[in-house]
Amino acid sequence: MNTKFALHILLFIIVLCLCSNLLAALSRDYEEQEDPELATCIHQCGQQRQYSKTDKRICIQACERYHHMKKERERHMQEEEARRRKQEDEDEDEDEGRRMDNPYVFDDEDFRTKLETQEGRVRVLNKFSTRSKLLQGIRNYLLVTLEAKGHTFTSPSYFDSDAVIFVVKGRGVIGLVREDKTDRFKLEYGDMMRVPAGTLVYFVNRDENQNLVLANLFIPLLSTPPEFKAFNPEQFLTAFSIDKLEAALKTPREKLRGVFEQEEKGSIIKISREEVEAVSKVKEGFWPFTTQTGAPFNLLGTRPFISNQYGRLYQSSLDKPSDLNELNLVVSFSNITRGSMSAPSYATRATKICLVAEGEGYVEIVCPHYSGRGRKQDRPSYQRLSSGLRTGMVFVVPTGHPFLVGASKEDELHILCFELNARGNRIQALAGKNNVMIAMDKDAKQLTFMQPADKVDEIFSTQESFFFPGPNNNDHSHGRAYA
Amino acid sequence: MNTKFALHILLFIIVLCLCSNLLAALSRDYEEQEDPELATCIHQCGQQRQYSKTDKRICIQACERYHHMKKERERHMQEEEARRRKQEDEDEDEDEGRRMDNPYVFDDEDFRTKLETQEGRVRVLNKFSTRSKLLQGIRNYLLVTLEAKGHTFTSPSYFDSDAVIFVVKGRGVIGLVREDKTDRFKLEYGDMMRVPAGTLVYFVNRDENQNLVLANLFIPLLSTPPEFKAFNPEQFLTAFSIDKLEAALKTPREKLRGVFEQEEKGSIIKISREEVEAVSKVKEGFWPFTTQTGAPFNLLGTRPFISNQYGRLYQSSLDKPSDLNELNLVVSFSNITRGSMSAPSYATRATKICLVAEGEGYVEIVCPHYSGRGRKQDRPSYQRLSSGLRTGMVFVVPTGHPFLVGASKEDELHILCFELNARGNRIQALAGKNNVMIAMDKDAKQLTFMQPADKVDEIFSTQESFFFPGPNNNDHSHGRAYA
Amino acid sequence: MNTKFALHILLFIIVLCLCSNLLAALSRDYEEQEDPELATCIHQCGQQRQYSKTDKRICIQACERYHHMKKERERHMQEEEARRRKQEDEDEDEDEGRRMDNPYVFDDEDFRTKLETQEGRVRVLNKFSTRSKLLQGIRNYLLVTLEAKGHTFTSPSYFDSDAVIFVVKGRGVIGLVREDKTDRFKLEYGDMMRVPAGTLVYFVNRDENQNLVLANLFIPLLSTPPEFKAFNPEQFLTAFSIDKLEAALKTPREKLRGVFEQEEKGSIIKISREEVEAVSKVKEGFWPFTTQTGAPFNLLGTRPFISNQYGRLYQSSLDKPSDLNELNLVVSFSNITRGSMSAPSYATRATKICLVAEGEGYVEIVCPHYSGRGRKQDRPSYQRLSSGLRTGMVFVVPTGHPFLVGASKEDELHILCFELNARGNRIQALAGKNNVMIAMDKDAKQLTFMQPADKVDEIFSTQESFFFPGPNNNDHSHGRAYA
Repeated sequence: MNTKFALHILLFIIVLCLCSNLLAALSRDYEEQEDPELATCIHQCGQQRQYSKTDKRICIQACERYHHMKKERERHMQEEEARRRKQEDEDEDEDEGRRMDNPYVFDDEDFRTKLETQEGRVRVLNKFSTRSKLLQGIRNYLLVTLEAKGHTFTSPSYFDSDAVIFVVKGRGVIGLVREDKTDRFKLEYGDMMRVPAGTLVYFVNRDENQNLVLANLFIPLLSTPPEFKAFNPEQFLTAFSIDKLEAALKTPREKLRGVFEQEEKGSIIKISREEVEAVSKVKEGFWPFTTQTGAPFNLLGTRPFISNQYGRLYQSSLDKPSDLNELNLVVSFSNITRGSMSAPSYATRATKICLVAEGEGYVEIVCPHYSGRGRKQDRPSYQRLSSGLRTGMVFVVPTGHPFLVGASKEDELHILCFELNARGNRIQALAGKNNVMIAMDKDAKQLTFMQPADKVDEIFSTQESFFFPGPNNNDHSHGRAYA
Repeated sequence: MNTKFALHILLFIIVLCLCSNLLAALSRDYEEQEDPELATCIHQCGQQRQYSKTDKRICIQACERYHHMKKERERHMQEEEARRRKQEDEDEDEDEGRRMDNPYVFDDEDFRTKLETQEGRVRVLNKFSTRSKLLQGIRNYLLVTLEAKGHTFTSPSYFDSDAVIFVVKGRGVIGLVREDKTDRFKLEYGDMMRVPAGTLVYFVNRDENQNLVLANLFIPLLSTPPEFKAFNPEQFLTAFSIDKLEAALKTPREKLRGVFEQEEKGSIIKISREEVEAVSKVKEGFWPFTTQTGAPFNLLGTRPFISNQYGRLYQSSLDKPSDLNELNLVVSFSNITRGSMSAPSYATRATKICLVAEGEGYVEIVCPHYSGRGRKQDRPSYQRLSSGLRTGMVFVVPTGHPFLVGASKEDELHILCFELNARGNRIQALAGKNNVMIAMDKDAKQLTFMQPADKVDEIFSTQESFFFPGPNNNDHSHGRAYA
Repeated sequence: MNTKFALHILLFIIVLCLCSNLLAALSRDYEEQEDPELATCIHQCGQQRQYSKTDKRICIQACERYHHMKKERERHMQEEEARRRKQEDEDEDEDEGRRMDNPYVFDDEDFRTKLETQEGRVRVLNKFSTRSKLLQGIRNYLLVTLEAKGHTFTSPSYFDSDAVIFVVKGRGVIGLVREDKTDRFKLEYGDMMRVPAGTLVYFVNRDENQNLVLANLFIPLLSTPPEFKAFNPEQFLTAFSIDKLEAALKTPREKLRGVFEQEEKGSIIKISREEVEAVSKVKEGFWPFTTQTGAPFNLLGTRPFISNQYGRLYQSSLDKPSDLNELNLVVSFSNITRGSMSAPSYATRATKICLVAEGEGYVEIVCPHYSGRGRKQDRPSYQRLSSGLRTGMVFVVPTGHPFLVGASKEDELHILCFELNARGNRIQALAGKNNVMIAMDKDAKQLTFMQPADKVDEIFSTQESFFFPGPNNNDHSHGRAYA
């Protein structure tokens, strides 16, 4: 009896759960309709003659797991792909929001610290090409800053690029080790000079309290891969094998160790007042500075290129004989007074790499081609890339791109620019005195603006030159002027 | 009774299908032998002590599903890989047949339209590097065409590259906005001139009916990423924030809107006969044209470099003072008469970017290294890349590559070439007067051809120079001369 | 009875294996704890109400297979990734051990044979950029060697790059086919000359027994993709379509075939003593050689730049008028006597591509930035890259990198270097006469070495200049001098 009963129970249960599962399977089948592959797979399970219902259920589960895994796999591969693209293709823009907005502005986080001691640090701006494909043209240029505390000595090193240095802050001394002697020069705020590739150079901060801050542009030689490389002899010599070093210096290794095994080598160290005085006895710089064995040249000591109550623009020249000429480089420095701004303008040939030396303000760059991930567009359209500015920030203005900079109401703004490809370059103002619209002939003006020329001139014939009072409100609304 | 019976039935069925499935499993095991992983998997199923036969069957099915998915995955990844390679590596050749055949010839479909209105359009040839790795050396040069209908005005824009323009068709006017005034010049068929980067320039089609067609080569500056960028002031000014614009132009936004908010801005517009006349009052061009503030120069007005009844070759010179010299660029123009062709020849230093200005014909370029996907070969072998030519097509002839062009029997062929890296370049003919074989000394000739020198000379001493009558049949059979 | 019994058996067995499997499942669940996804999957199997224990077990097995496949897939994708990176990104270093150690030294296996006959071969060094990102600056330069056996003729070809050739071994003749005649010159050991792009050139080995060995540097033109391309007219002419060729040469195809269809064309062939004599009648070279139509110049015939009992350094000059000047290239040649070595030194601007012309020795290059896969480091650290040298090996010394070379005790060492970007370059010694440490002022010296200056001078004031006796043992231990 009870065997029969047990058996019936057994069969009954089996039937029950089979049905339930079949239904489940069918319903799943239905939900998932949208994926044809899954549907097919499940369907085939149903078709298998030799399958018991259990088998079919399990078959269906397998279909679903496979489906789930496939989806997973695809997601996974897409992520992989995305990650790789971002990593590898260093010419692509990065994904981070601010940067998508503005590939031309660089912040603290874009610098990497190459050397740091208690007494100072050397920082290098990330390669321009890692920010955006749009900057590939200047990918091999490097911007490097040196900050050294009061009464310090930055031990001698040389580089595999030419460098142009500019004193952004403080009072220092530079020593350049030439073939047979060392040339020393005092460094003051606004001094600039070229340091030729391979020339051993050291720095002293003569001031006890104030930092010495240098902004340096490294200009690639043919062979320089875009990487910052400092060579400190007293460090790298010990990298040669000891037996070769013994032979070269005719000195037993014990004695060599005595000289080379020091702490704190090749870095920035505190020195005594006496040491500062000793190492600060220098020739004075000359003007105009001479070729190769160049002495520093004070840009801010020259007559400003443009000057009014709202601002001043200083600019080195390629006409004067100078060891910067062959670099096809101009250095400019703008002082913009509180609440003032520069005229919208563009450089006809040069690309500017600018550092905010001091102060707060804003920059606006108009970009004809930039869109999301640098994709090209089939119709020209212009986008404003604007950003606040504060001390230490860097921005790039590519050739031809209209831009303006302004100082906040609270603060003067001092901007240092290295202008690459400067030969034959012209600053073309878009407002204020001799702006391009004034130079345009009457007929073209009318056809361009579809207005009587004088109505257009009314607008463009402001007589102020280059620096103006800024707007009353400094809101940097990101919307277009005419949405 | 019937319980016992049912039970027996049940057991019997179970046994039956188990066997069948076991057999199935084994047979599958056998078929799939070739994949070791699958075999192992299936084998392991068999080994599982704790498995019932059902479990083993299901285990085996799982193995097979896994196997199927693995294969699928691999296929999927290969496709992924292929797709990515093609997309990403923009230096690779494309897969499309014609292009595999010929990486040096460009067609309508290789142009992208940047601007198009009822009255005309601006088209840009795709970057050379997207066509083939072989063109990476000229990747930053851009070829741009402007077509404007009768009586039109193309509003002023400037560019972030130097440009050399050539009038392929029509009668126009060009206006260049300099620092303090606008220079206007008439443009005729065959005129060429340099438009410096950053100089605002506009065009007028003086002719009522005929199109004005310009071919422009854009020459990159240091910083120019290889992308076409046009800057239209009356458009981009409105991209600055309105408050800055008000400050710069000292004009309330309402008034600004009045001037800037126009339709059809920055494009090609129809203008009246009167407007044409007004804007066509110009200075005449000078010859030889002077630096920077260059006036147009008519290439076709000069004495041809080569000329006979079969064709004429005009060529600008780097010896004359000219603002093209510093670009290291020569412009050449060939007229080939019906059914005639140029001598096989090569340029010793220059790379030619050529546009078919008018007519029909063919080009043959011989390529020493090209093979399928640009892979290198371990033995030099030469391939002919030939193509028909018709108005508007573009082809590139890299340095040193032997080539010839010919006109169809029905049509003259007019070809405009921009020759890059032209300084010190020489056209070296391979047939006709002073061809390289004639210049080769007797001894070398004999060792090279393993023939008596005079037998070789017989062939190479044709007296015709550079342009010849073409073959009687213009079939461009793609096979090699000696298969 | 036995039905009941069978039934009980059946149930008993089912229960048994279910338990065993459940335990198994749990234990697996436990083992695999570490992978959360797997744990979850298994857990869910447990949760499925409608599952029988068997189902659950199978579900768990599926989880585990999926887990295994996932792991497998990830491994697979990582491998894929790795393989692709290596393949595609040709700027990455390769994985092979020696190369990871030293990206600057090249060996036989780094050459590819472009042409090989019984009588000689042409080999090309792989692109520098395929070795290391660090060499991307010279990626377009190619080093090519020609080796021709006694009494051979290398048939005329031209190239799409400028080339500088140097006779490393043997006595030959070079023929350059100019526009209207062929210039022939004798070639001796130490001769160097420029072969302009597009100039047809052939070589003869005048010596019956000794090989003629040439080292050639190919200097890219604007448009040259970094690939070796040789053009042999008597070969490539037949690549034009036969009808065009007939028209150009005014010769029926039968006759053309007669001339062009030869074996052994465009290669290196044995020639008779008489043929050698015939083709060896030459003008003598002049000194200093003149532009373009340059004759060879014997570097080893000039006064050595440096010379003492331990070695000699010869160096071409950019001051003399020469057709190498515009290439901004200097060729140097060092003879180092047995067991001697050069001073540790660096080039301030130039990058050297050096070939071991003859002998055995070693090179040590100190590298500030190199680490594993070229990743940057945040602190300067210096690594010695050292390698043995033997005839035919190549090494590169990038700008500013300190290095030294030495000869083995058994063998002189002869090294040929092509120095790129040589204008304004200076060899800066780090030991021996006028080394940089001597030129450093006393104060800086003390602050740098934290030693009395005289103690430092003691070490650096060796009077020997540039070439020294080497160390007593030539072990190239790879550890740092001071581990």
